Amino acid sequence: PPREGWKKGGRMLSVLLSVNVLLLACTLISSGAFNKVAVYDTDVFALLTAMMLLTTSWILFYLFRTSRRPDAVPYLDSHAGPIWLQGGLVLFGVCTLIMDVFKTGYYSSFFECQSAIKILHPIIQAVFVIVQTYFLWVSAKDCIHAHLDLTRCGLMFTLATNLSIWMAAVVDESVHQAHSYSGNSSHARLTSDAERAGEACPCNTTFCQIFERGYFYLYPFNIEYSLFASTIVYVMWKNVGRLIGPSHGHGHGHGHGHTPTPASLFRETFFIGPVLGLFMFVVGLGVFIIYEVQETRGIHKALVLYYSFNVVCLGLMTLVSLGGSIIYRFDQRAMDHHKNPTRTVDVALLMGAALGQYAISYYSIVAVVVRTPRDLMGGLNLAYSLLMIAQHTFQNVFIIESLHRGPPAIQGNPPNEPVHGLTYANQDALQTLPACPPTPRLVGSTPAEPQEAVSIFPAPQRNWRSKCLKDISLFLLLCNVILWIMPAFGARPHFNNNLELDFYGYSLWAAIVNICLPFGIFYRMHAVSSLLEVYVLS
Amino acid sequence: PPREGWKKGGRMLSVLLSVNVLLLACTLISSGAFNKVAVYDTDVFALLTAMMLLTTSWILFYLFRTSRRPDAVPYLDSHAGPIWLQGGLVLFGVCTLIMDVFKTGYYSSFFECQSAIKILHPIIQAVFVIVQTYFLWVSAKDCIHAHLDLTRCGLMFTLATNLSIWMAAVVDESVHQAHSYSGNSSHARLTSDAERAGEACPCNTTFCQIFERGYFYLYPFNIEYSLFASTIVYVMWKNVGRLIGPSHGHGHGHGHGHTPTPASLFRETFFIGPVLGLFMFVVGLGVFIIYEVQETRGIHKALVLYYSFNVVCLGLMTLVSLGGSIIYRFDQRAMDHHKNPTRTVDVALLMGAALGQYAISYYSIVAVVVRTPRDLMGGLNLAYSLLMIAQHTFQNVFIIESLHRGPPAIQGNPPNEPVHGLTYANQDALQTLPACPPTPRLVGSTPAEPQEAVSIFPAPQRNWRSKCLKDISLFLLLCNVILWIMPAFGARPHFNNNLELDFYGYSLWAAIVNICLPFGIFYRMHAVSSLLEVYVLS
Repeated sequence: PPREGWKKGGRMLSVLLSVNVLLLACTLISSGAFNKVAVYDTDVFALLTAMMLLTTSWILFYLFRTSRRPDAVPYLDSHAGPIWLQGGLVLFGVCTLIMDVFKTGYYSSFFECQSAIKILHPIIQAVFVIVQTYFLWVSAKDCIHAHLDLTRCGLMFTLATNLSIWMAAVVDESVHQAHSYSGNSSHARLTSDAERAGEACPCNTTFCQIFERGYFYLYPFNIEYSLFASTIVYVMWKNVGRLIGPSHGHGHGHGHGHTPTPASLFRETFFIGPVLGLFMFVVGLGVFIIYEVQETRGIHKALVLYYSFNVVCLGLMTLVSLGGSIIYRFDQRAMDHHKNPTRTVDVALLMGAALGQYAISYYSIVAVVVRTPRDLMGGLNLAYSLLMIAQHTFQNVFIIESLHRGPPAIQGNPPNEPVHGLTYANQDALQTLPACPPTPRLVGSTPAEPQEAVSIFPAPQRNWRSKCLKDISLFLLLCNVILWIMPAFGARPHFNNNLELDFYGYSLWAAIVNICLPFGIFYRMHAVSSLLEVYVLS
Repeated sequence: PPREGWKKGGRMLSVLLSVNVLLLACTLISSGAFNKVAVYDTDVFALLTAMMLLTTSWILFYLFRTSRRPDAVPYLDSHAGPIWLQGGLVLFGVCTLIMDVFKTGYYSSFFECQSAIKILHPIIQAVFVIVQTYFLWVSAKDCIHAHLDLTRCGLMFTLATNLSIWMAAVVDESVHQAHSYSGNSSHARLTSDAERAGEACPCNTTFCQIFERGYFYLYPFNIEYSLFASTIVYVMWKNVGRLIGPSHGHGHGHGHGHTPTPASLFRETFFIGPVLGLFMFVVGLGVFIIYEVQETRGIHKALVLYYSFNVVCLGLMTLVSLGGSIIYRFDQRAMDHHKNPTRTVDVALLMGAALGQYAISYYSIVAVVVRTPRDLMGGLNLAYSLLMIAQHTFQNVFIIESLHRGPPAIQGNPPNEPVHGLTYANQDALQTLPACPPTPRLVGSTPAEPQEAVSIFPAPQRNWRSKCLKDISLFLLLCNVILWIMPAFGARPHFNNNLELDFYGYSLWAAIVNICLPFGIFYRMHAVSSLLEVYVLS
């Protein structure tokens, strides 16, 4: 396909479209969440339903068109849509479907006093989720070269739809949470629409209550689904009209194909990382259950337990990430300089999503430091916040450095294997040659650079480092999973310890936590998928 | 200088540093602005003073070091720090210095009951502004190749300092404004610290009141200064460790050297743009003065006048931008695909800063559309908001397309001029040749591509288009200046028309406007400097 005249122009138009759609949705959603305002949640539902219908029809149009024109997708980006992202998408998609069933059931329970759009919305959402998941499963790797501007606009509109659904879910969850906190404190400003409607038709039947409870527990999955889909769609948008050289397609791809199996786990790690990680996971789960049970009485003890576990866990994670970065100081693998939109997005998301937890931590620190009575809870909170910042920083440094290392040299090659196997060890050196000769050469005949020598000869040492890195990544992965579970399923020490709540007042503190915590939760999810990639690449 | 091992690593560290510093400052500043909280503005001043001292010493260290090592800066980026950005920086720097004098005077008036940091702060700020302006004037174009990581961290810290000063100024202005609105409405939540302190030592003397009034009028300049400095520092940071090919240094630079003079104005435009623009400017200034005078009584009439002028002005600007984009559809100049961090930042700032005005407009639209009683004011407000969105969109499209066009072909060359003059017309074609021969060739001997033929032969038509574009850019420039002056010097129809205020409530609407409007004001400034560049490049 011919080179595009001005790529940025098409991109600009599609970004403008999505920004406008997104701002309109954002305005309606935030207006709908405030009580005084004459915007009802039905308006929001109507907008979201319309957007999902439009997106679904564009996706169907796209799938139909590309199936008839095989030349529309001349290249595939091997980095895009790795298997765990796709797997996560399907998993969260299934959970979203279950949530939609619950939601339909909940709103059907009092059909007579709800508008039809509230029942239509989850049904359309289910259709949208199915179509979009199929689309992303099939086309995540496409570098599309047909109808460039239309495709860009379609993808950006899909992105805007997913982000709008995400915003609506986050706002809805915050409203629900504010509602549940208004029981024991008089701070609550936000009143859920469900409650307002509930005055006319109460949700009394057992089914209705099960449906309501179920769909609020499944919200986190819907939130993650939207963010996962947004990531994949963004990478697809970046790949529209991209030209990939033939040599570029594989190379990194080799690492991706290799999925961890139980057998390889025994062979490739020292086994300390997964065991310690599983231990932390089980202990964390116990602490979380105690915290949730004790929330009504004995909250102080539960909080001390919760904070203590987190301090220990975060401290260990910080040390382990630091250890990983130190190991890299002795690692002579070349850095991978190739263009890779997926990795760029990954890194940006890790850095960006960490901002949420950073902000919460800094607000906590200021509150604890400035407050005059200093007690155990304040000390624990301070340690927790400081370690949270340190852990995010060092984990990000470790993950980002890992993602930029080239894949390891293949060990134990017989010395008269062709140069092909060496491509991974010293890709850069080969690329700086005027033209890579495709004729097989012996390893011994390549110019003896020190870097190469290191990565070939002391195999046991290299292997030791690789094992260590795999241990580290598995430990961090399991810890991130437990630190994801806690906030995603409702642990809110931020509101229970009353420290920041008294200092900033309910409305400010609730705004800070409710805006920033979803990013913090997404960070954990994303760190898990990145650490899985680190494990595979090490 | 040798190529850096892993550029992204150094960048990541410096970004992490600046993000943490910035979040800490943000936490303190936002806590300080809220009444209940035990964080005082002295804490904020202390933090800002410490940051400015650190930045100043780093800058002095940098200047000292580069003056002794001439090999530290092997390349200059000719796109970085164009003359109007530098000029604007100096202008706003001088205004900031005057503001600092006023501020020192103001706080000295009641020296006995203020802490010393409040007087120290403007003095340190003056030193900081002088040192930083000199530094940016001298080194804006540097591509630094010494102590890469330290320089990156230093530049990012400078950026964080400027953004913190910007945040503090915006918050301070909002607090002051909320205070001045609390007189005629009971909505105000925020109380200015000045008022709190004022209860003990009132600002009664004439001098003190002049100082107070003066420094609040000079705030917009301080805000713009910080943003201008941030832009330049960001480009310097992007340029650290950058390698520039020798052919890349000039080329675009030619266009930059050419500054508009009154004589060239007569020669190069149809003279309609500047005349119409000046007319709008004068009318706008009159409307603004009437609006400011009538604010106390007859506010309704003043608002109708203000909105009517804005609707006409924005409508004209939208049409003119659209016309410019249409002219480009007939313009066969090649797009400039070269890497240019300054332009990338410019485009990102234009798109990003427009978000502020977009958000305000969408909130206005929702309020007007949903509200039941529909009157003249609502209609005007709706037209104003819709046109604001259209104008920002089309102006951005026009400016961004202009910035990506290559400089025009030099007209009227004698046909046996060397190929050098043609470089501008068809740089891409030359660069795709295996090696650009430096030997002079005749224009007639180059392969006759259609694109080239168009840009050389029909000189009058080309000239007509160029004139038209120059007219358009001057008209838009003058309109942007008047649309900058109005909000920057205190016109707040958002609070006077009571439409959105009643709809959203004071706290929400004030938060939206106070967060978004500074971006809108910055957008106007930035559009002016971009349009000047468009004028020169056309």
